[in-house]
Amino acid sequence: MPEYKAPQRDMMFVLNDVINVSELAELPGFEDATPDIVQGVIDEAAKIIENTIAPLNETGDREGCRFDNGTVTAPAGFKEAYQLYAESGWTGLDKSIDFGGQGLPYTLATAVTDMLSAGNDAFSLYPGLTNGACEALVEHGSQELQDIYLEKLTTGEWTGTMCLTEPQAGSDLSQVRTKAIDQNDGTYLVEGTKVFITGGEHDFVENIIHLVLARLPDAPAGVKGISMFLIPKFMINSDASLGERNPVVCASIEEKMGIHGSSTCVMNFENAVGYMIGNPNEGLRYMFTMMNLARLMVGLQGLGVAERATQGAIEYAKERKQATAINGGATIIHHPDVRRMLMTMKALTEGCRMVAYDTAKQYDISKAHPDASVRKTANDRVELMTPICKAFATDTGCEVASLGVQVLGGAGYIRESGMEQHMRDAKIFCIYEGTNAIQALDLVGRKMKLNLPQNFITEMAAKLEAESSNSELAFILEPMKIALELLDETTQWLIKAAQEDPQNPAAAAVEYLTLYSLLTHGYFWVIAAKAALIKQDDSFCQAKLATAQFFAAKILPRVHSLAPAIMSGAAVVMAAEEDGI
Amino acid sequence: MPEYKAPQRDMMFVLNDVINVSELAELPGFEDATPDIVQGVIDEAAKIIENTIAPLNETGDREGCRFDNGTVTAPAGFKEAYQLYAESGWTGLDKSIDFGGQGLPYTLATAVTDMLSAGNDAFSLYPGLTNGACEALVEHGSQELQDIYLEKLTTGEWTGTMCLTEPQAGSDLSQVRTKAIDQNDGTYLVEGTKVFITGGEHDFVENIIHLVLARLPDAPAGVKGISMFLIPKFMINSDASLGERNPVVCASIEEKMGIHGSSTCVMNFENAVGYMIGNPNEGLRYMFTMMNLARLMVGLQGLGVAERATQGAIEYAKERKQATAINGGATIIHHPDVRRMLMTMKALTEGCRMVAYDTAKQYDISKAHPDASVRKTANDRVELMTPICKAFATDTGCEVASLGVQVLGGAGYIRESGMEQHMRDAKIFCIYEGTNAIQALDLVGRKMKLNLPQNFITEMAAKLEAESSNSELAFILEPMKIALELLDETTQWLIKAAQEDPQNPAAAAVEYLTLYSLLTHGYFWVIAAKAALIKQDDSFCQAKLATAQFFAAKILPRVHSLAPAIMSGAAVVMAAEEDGI
Repeated sequence: MPEYKAPQRDMMFVLNDVINVSELAELPGFEDATPDIVQGVIDEAAKIIENTIAPLNETGDREGCRFDNGTVTAPAGFKEAYQLYAESGWTGLDKSIDFGGQGLPYTLATAVTDMLSAGNDAFSLYPGLTNGACEALVEHGSQELQDIYLEKLTTGEWTGTMCLTEPQAGSDLSQVRTKAIDQNDGTYLVEGTKVFITGGEHDFVENIIHLVLARLPDAPAGVKGISMFLIPKFMINSDASLGERNPVVCASIEEKMGIHGSSTCVMNFENAVGYMIGNPNEGLRYMFTMMNLARLMVGLQGLGVAERATQGAIEYAKERKQATAINGGATIIHHPDVRRMLMTMKALTEGCRMVAYDTAKQYDISKAHPDASVRKTANDRVELMTPICKAFATDTGCEVASLGVQVLGGAGYIRESGMEQHMRDAKIFCIYEGTNAIQALDLVGRKMKLNLPQNFITEMAAKLEAESSNSELAFILEPMKIALELLDETTQWLIKAAQEDPQNPAAAAVEYLTLYSLLTHGYFWVIAAKAALIKQDDSFCQAKLATAQFFAAKILPRVHSLAPAIMSGAAVVMAAEEDGI
Repeated sequence: MPEYKAPQRDMMFVLNDVINVSELAELPGFEDATPDIVQGVIDEAAKIIENTIAPLNETGDREGCRFDNGTVTAPAGFKEAYQLYAESGWTGLDKSIDFGGQGLPYTLATAVTDMLSAGNDAFSLYPGLTNGACEALVEHGSQELQDIYLEKLTTGEWTGTMCLTEPQAGSDLSQVRTKAIDQNDGTYLVEGTKVFITGGEHDFVENIIHLVLARLPDAPAGVKGISMFLIPKFMINSDASLGERNPVVCASIEEKMGIHGSSTCVMNFENAVGYMIGNPNEGLRYMFTMMNLARLMVGLQGLGVAERATQGAIEYAKERKQATAINGGATIIHHPDVRRMLMTMKALTEGCRMVAYDTAKQYDISKAHPDASVRKTANDRVELMTPICKAFATDTGCEVASLGVQVLGGAGYIRESGMEQHMRDAKIFCIYEGTNAIQALDLVGRKMKLNLPQNFITEMAAKLEAESSNSELAFILEPMKIALELLDETTQWLIKAAQEDPQNPAAAAVEYLTLYSLLTHGYFWVIAAKAALIKQDDSFCQAKLATAQFFAAKILPRVHSLAPAIMSGAAVVMAAEEDGI
């Protein structure tokens, strides 16, 4: 079982040489985010994750969560590790100092989550979901609710959940049936059952704060009639001490393919007392405040699992001897097909890291930049990149974890190797917080209407043009140019085809998201390759450049299958009669 | 948990309308394989598999095999189901009547294994591995060994294993260290440890016959010094009764990602008594007799798991309601992206069935046809198609099972759904009996030297040409023509590039196998579409034609990413310095 080592060299390369993180320290409020602090934060986070949290990944998988009459016990060590993590201030890294946070950029929190997800993806969900609850409270909660709950959530003393899904309401939240009755005393009584609630019950902390979607009796049908409620596990007395147990009860936990260390709960709200967040019937909008951050986090889970699988596969391939390779190498890393798999893993993983970190930087700019138009531009990029970060990085997690097992061969299929766990864990990332198809529909739907994909195509074209005189980058600029033309053609086709039949973009959405993601990766590989060329002084930069070349030659060509598949239209997808399928 | 239903309509379509199974009845020895018998065999096999074996799939996964001090107990019901399966004559379906078999074509056994794998892939391994042992004995065993062992194996009264892998000798059998010492009494004492031995120990039958690779003391190094030995768990007395326990001991079983119902054993041969099969130092060649059949069987496991995942996903999608689709449909099968996934699953699964069944028919012709040149041609096709059946069908198994989970969403990730088991089971098929990379190296190496891929390209081109006047097939003939030109170009490139650097074909082998497989599928989709056009009288044929169209429009375009990736060469794969990876 390989140990997790934070890929600090690559993380710092992305932060410094790809996204230029030092620019963040120029933003008001982020003055503390100096290069020293950035390096220090990464160093310290790496320590606690490598030493305390990552070693619980395999034991957590094996042991799983235990359910007993409404209580849930996480695997051994999780509670203590969580408390250390929270007490060390990691849960509040990017939260406002007004509520007990550290006030550092989200970009830094992203780098920490990259490590945390890789170290222990099941563990990462407990603080991860709390983040979304914090953000919804910050953005939409009353001053009173903020005063009572926000600091406890920020410091990780309590955790939070997102209670959206019901048996009949998964991707389709219009079907939410949970009811909330106004008690006319500032509280509501909430009744209903929520399923697949991550961290709905566990033994880490003394209180759990549920953000719950429910309907008022007179609410309009569909998503326009959903309100959001804050429902604590324990009521809070006026002196801030814990009060009565609220009747929100974990009925059972799910037996899952993976992420066994994360409790996935059926939660019964049995006339539980709740407080409305914001205004009635605006819950869906507030939900997206949580959801958008959660989607970026899930993308980081994809990145994290890909990183860990890649590390494990490389370590194995450097040690395992099996037939002398053509080049005379004794270990299997010298076998061309093993190398092909490892380079695929590296290229996809490192690409996802660049996109994730840059999106995080845009998020920080969108929040903190003094100029509204700069904030708007940055926010547009975050909006565009959210489905890409979520869907492509999680597809990557699955692809890379599967390759990891393949590199190890029979050994990879045995639980002891630790590799098959990554495959089992990774699959859920493609599903929760909006399936990857939902992400793709968002991209070809709302985001396309806002011109966001089109605008970034223009930006990418300008970048390619700006670098066009650099002959050392021709290896990627030339295929990127062709690929970008294909993306542009496909985008134009989609816009036109949507008018002819709205099924056209829907049938091609997933392939279009993948195509778009490949171009986005290519865009960042141009930047990375340029930086590596300048600094080509060690094996890291040599490999970085080689990985860029590999991406251009072996991965970017995927666009040539996606484009014709997209433009073949919906008719061919929908043609079969249901009875014959 | 959806029940397994044998896809009899599709199986009969492939047998009758794609591969013309009735031709087999014209071969000497196969006179009994009349249409009535074929239908009867499929009907009866479907019954026992649907009713008795498939229901044990989920319980087998959950319960797994238990190890206790050298004994292995399979999950509840497996033993009884196996005994019923054997007693009903299914293990000997395609074995010679001289040894207690039914003497029917291998093509029929292939159809049965398709169902058996889908019904319960872990279960299917017990009779599956026995088949390989039978074949090695038939081809290479002495009359005496055949007389003692063959009927018991054919009838399934005993089972067989293939003991090849050792900790240091996985893909590289040159490293086999197990020793055999000649006792000069017709027996050898065999000492060594074999790992990953499927069915090495279990509780189904009273004797297990191991075919073991080992070295004589004076054997040449490497694969030219490997001999094959038959080692029974219990010795056989001269009156055919069971004798002493041979010291071949199961030391432990592996805890795996999936196929929990199959025992995967560490086997210690502690000076166990064995009998040499054939001649000294020719064990590798005999091993391939087993291995080639085992590879085709594993391909059927890929097909089987794909079929079962597809059935489960279709059933779910026809029932699950979640947001009204654009076309007004209430269930998710009407959502274009869900439909895209289901059609991908259908197209790949049905394509694998066509290739597998046709390869089986060629196998029968290669054994039974009176004309040696016809036998040779058929054998060439089997040789070419073995890596394709094994690797592409098992990659398909993984892709389709993963799509199956995706169609079900969160429900698919829960064990209760039965779908995640398919993903866990499917991965090993890409690894055992020669990893898919080994298959691909076989294709670009030995098979290419024999001109087998080249010859079938010519055959495919002729087929496209022969159909070219059929305008109703233009939807597939046109893209196939372009794809075939690409395959031809790629093949010529590989041959040339191999001379410049033998790493070139090795680095591109997996992509080339995938490319070749897509063309092979396309070739059969032309045949299937033609048949469906003629018979376009019901929803099955309507859907078959729609699936051919989907293949042509959405799956075949994958060739356009594979070809440039292949022809980018090995340098870009091998460029990174090991230290930087």
